[in-house]
Amino acid sequence: METFFNPQSVAVVGASNTLFNLAGTICNLLKHNNYHGRVYAVNRKGESVHGCPGYTSVLDIPDTVDLAVLLLSAQHVPQIVSDCGKKGIKNIIIESAGFSEAGEEGLKLQSEMEGYLRQYGMRLLGPNCLGTLNTHNGFCCFYGFVPEKYGDGFIAPGTISYIIQSGGIGVLVLDSFHKDVCKVNKMVSIGNKSDVDEADLIDYFNRDNTEVIGMYLENVRNGSKLMEAAKKVKKPILAFKVGRTSEGSKAAMSHTAGMANNDVIFDSACRQSGIIRLKSISELHSMPKMFTTMPLLRGNRIAVITNSGAFGGIAADLLVEAGLEMAVLSDDTQARLAKTGQLFNAKNPVDLGPAMAKQMFLDIFEILLSCDEVDGLLPVPNVWQDAVLEAIIELVKMCRHYDKPAALYIPNAIEKILGIRAKYQIPVFESPEEATRALAVSHQQHNYLLKKERYAYEGNHIQSSGKETESAVGV
Amino acid sequence: METFFNPQSVAVVGASNTLFNLAGTICNLLKHNNYHGRVYAVNRKGESVHGCPGYTSVLDIPDTVDLAVLLLSAQHVPQIVSDCGKKGIKNIIIESAGFSEAGEEGLKLQSEMEGYLRQYGMRLLGPNCLGTLNTHNGFCCFYGFVPEKYGDGFIAPGTISYIIQSGGIGVLVLDSFHKDVCKVNKMVSIGNKSDVDEADLIDYFNRDNTEVIGMYLENVRNGSKLMEAAKKVKKPILAFKVGRTSEGSKAAMSHTAGMANNDVIFDSACRQSGIIRLKSISELHSMPKMFTTMPLLRGNRIAVITNSGAFGGIAADLLVEAGLEMAVLSDDTQARLAKTGQLFNAKNPVDLGPAMAKQMFLDIFEILLSCDEVDGLLPVPNVWQDAVLEAIIELVKMCRHYDKPAALYIPNAIEKILGIRAKYQIPVFESPEEATRALAVSHQQHNYLLKKERYAYEGNHIQSSGKETESAVGV
Repeated sequence: METFFNPQSVAVVGASNTLFNLAGTICNLLKHNNYHGRVYAVNRKGESVHGCPGYTSVLDIPDTVDLAVLLLSAQHVPQIVSDCGKKGIKNIIIESAGFSEAGEEGLKLQSEMEGYLRQYGMRLLGPNCLGTLNTHNGFCCFYGFVPEKYGDGFIAPGTISYIIQSGGIGVLVLDSFHKDVCKVNKMVSIGNKSDVDEADLIDYFNRDNTEVIGMYLENVRNGSKLMEAAKKVKKPILAFKVGRTSEGSKAAMSHTAGMANNDVIFDSACRQSGIIRLKSISELHSMPKMFTTMPLLRGNRIAVITNSGAFGGIAADLLVEAGLEMAVLSDDTQARLAKTGQLFNAKNPVDLGPAMAKQMFLDIFEILLSCDEVDGLLPVPNVWQDAVLEAIIELVKMCRHYDKPAALYIPNAIEKILGIRAKYQIPVFESPEEATRALAVSHQQHNYLLKKERYAYEGNHIQSSGKETESAVGV
Repeated sequence: METFFNPQSVAVVGASNTLFNLAGTICNLLKHNNYHGRVYAVNRKGESVHGCPGYTSVLDIPDTVDLAVLLLSAQHVPQIVSDCGKKGIKNIIIESAGFSEAGEEGLKLQSEMEGYLRQYGMRLLGPNCLGTLNTHNGFCCFYGFVPEKYGDGFIAPGTISYIIQSGGIGVLVLDSFHKDVCKVNKMVSIGNKSDVDEADLIDYFNRDNTEVIGMYLENVRNGSKLMEAAKKVKKPILAFKVGRTSEGSKAAMSHTAGMANNDVIFDSACRQSGIIRLKSISELHSMPKMFTTMPLLRGNRIAVITNSGAFGGIAADLLVEAGLEMAVLSDDTQARLAKTGQLFNAKNPVDLGPAMAKQMFLDIFEILLSCDEVDGLLPVPNVWQDAVLEAIIELVKMCRHYDKPAALYIPNAIEKILGIRAKYQIPVFESPEEATRALAVSHQQHNYLLKKERYAYEGNHIQSSGKETESAVGV
């Protein structure tokens, strides 16, 4: 599997210098990224493309080739797959569309191509996909990608790996991390997944430097394989799937040839195998930072800290609706809080009113993180003064020290939140709903790991319906 | 009521030159805004503040005074209210806290002050509030507001009026409009609302240049008065209320002294009186543009147009979950769509694939808006090329022509969406969820008006439980 993300030599079949040639954009991108491997172009004329030596066939390349990337008319694909087999290439990415999603003719091409794959023992990614991206070595075979359009930092290296069944979602996710505190490790677009599927990739991401796995799925072909793969993983697996309604399933079917799946079954499969099901597409990029910057939420009692009484009430509603609880502070804790300064309210939600002194914030964070009644924080501070931002930066360290998480929201327009997050590199969420959800998702992961350990101890597989998990997501 | 928003002469009681004096910031703000009215400061020394002539008592001001704004220690308030009465001032805003929300002592002060109000026939806004903002004449008595911090356009004049029970929410709303296509008309912070309440203000906003009314409520003291006021209004009334859970109610109670309300009752009151209940605080600023830039959604059949197959499925799921429907396109409509260019899918969702020609978008918009099977659009276009943005600008005009709305979402990172919305002034929503919700909310308003008309025709009051409304919000 590693070869799909780190090939020493690549043949881009279909790349030419013709205007609007899509495969050519891959050669351009690899050169732009200074990719360390050797890159060859294969086209009818045998011409070189963006500095990559050109040949008329993969068989003519005077080098071993690890990976072939095919992007040309579907009807030519089976012949080229056969050539790749003869050449001894073991990994193929087919980006072309026109196979099983395109009716009878496509199915015929698909079956022919699959014959060669079996004959030569090759692994296939696709067809109808964008291929792979590895931010750590600059390998990327996403076609149509114009690096100049995105600017620096667009594919800055990180630790979140994505398995996606749509190129558009991939671009959205990458783009969204531009103003966030965590970044992408690897991304793979699986398309029609006629061979390599999400389960193979979960397996792979379980063994590399990935911290969090994100998935966008339009269908699941082999549910039990997915569940078996997921059950082996302790890293958080976050999944968004379309097709919750029959209209959504129908629309997805026309996109990547998936069968309409029963959504209830998928939901239950997720619960049993510890996959955290996401509620909106934006959670794919908003939730990972909760895992990369914060400890897991080990209980459900949350303390809210705010400068705005309104957000105290808003947060309380959201926490309860998410299956979490407003922590009940002891008299002792309340007395200690009252000593930090002029509080509007020393009960939970702790309301500082207009007070914005750094030390006061730090004292309050410390009292709440260290007390027995609180498992995690939902701070909603006003950041009109830099002192508050400095206190928040300290908070991230304090959370690690006390092994309790905080999910931050700043009650400003989104524009300001993005600016603050990028400038100060603090894990701020974009709405109170998102921050609350991050706490719920963190707790769900904690509960799953706990259950997993318990079952492992008892020598059992995890098969229960996961009551604890359910309550944590507030279903 | 007009005097609260457009006084010819104002006394700011409590304003001085002392460091951190909050009332003084109001004088500063009115000067900064070049407010046309006459502004006086009242303080112990009788000193002038930011160019506003100073007096030791309102009784000494050698001018008639329309409005007194009080921001000083609660214990002094009753005496000053009495002075205001003697002076003949008919409108008072009390921004000070420390009344009914502050226990027994506060209740005593409140009752004393209310005695003087009755005696002299004065109207009161507050206490424990920020007062009013009128973007059209620059009147604003929000304390602590530092105009230099916000920059131009922060209070650009618009047509959305807000009734809010929290200053923090007010600032968030104002700030969020900075990168949006509609703006604020008036905003009023009602605090403990011991006299003027949301019903009085709905009544007022029904008669001024307001197009949409937004409300943030922590409690409702007089539900039937609110319902009666709302029922007279044809303008959309959007309301967010905290206290859906008992924890949320408790938190709100500590903020603005409201009684915990039964949320189910509030919900039913909203349905009966045509108030659209919002699901998140951000909807307070995100939803109004659907009413100011688009016709109402008169049926529930939606066509999705996308460049990304993934978003076709995502949108279909969301529409169905919101109680709307994916429009079923006739063979004729599909044939006409297929002629516009190389489509991936001419069924709904209409998938253009990577095609991004302006004329193709325009043709598709026109076919869908003019066909009988479609009531509204949910376009999810890629905007990599300016031609698409030009097409979207045209779409807004086409929607008016065909009297059918479109709720736009652009599948880019939020940062890019904000940039596009502000630069091209097109009503783009920030997530597919938000765009779908805008359609649902528009349809809810349409159905309410329809029901209202029908009942008026039958000579009845609107008293049913609002079945249609319910289905439109997908409860």
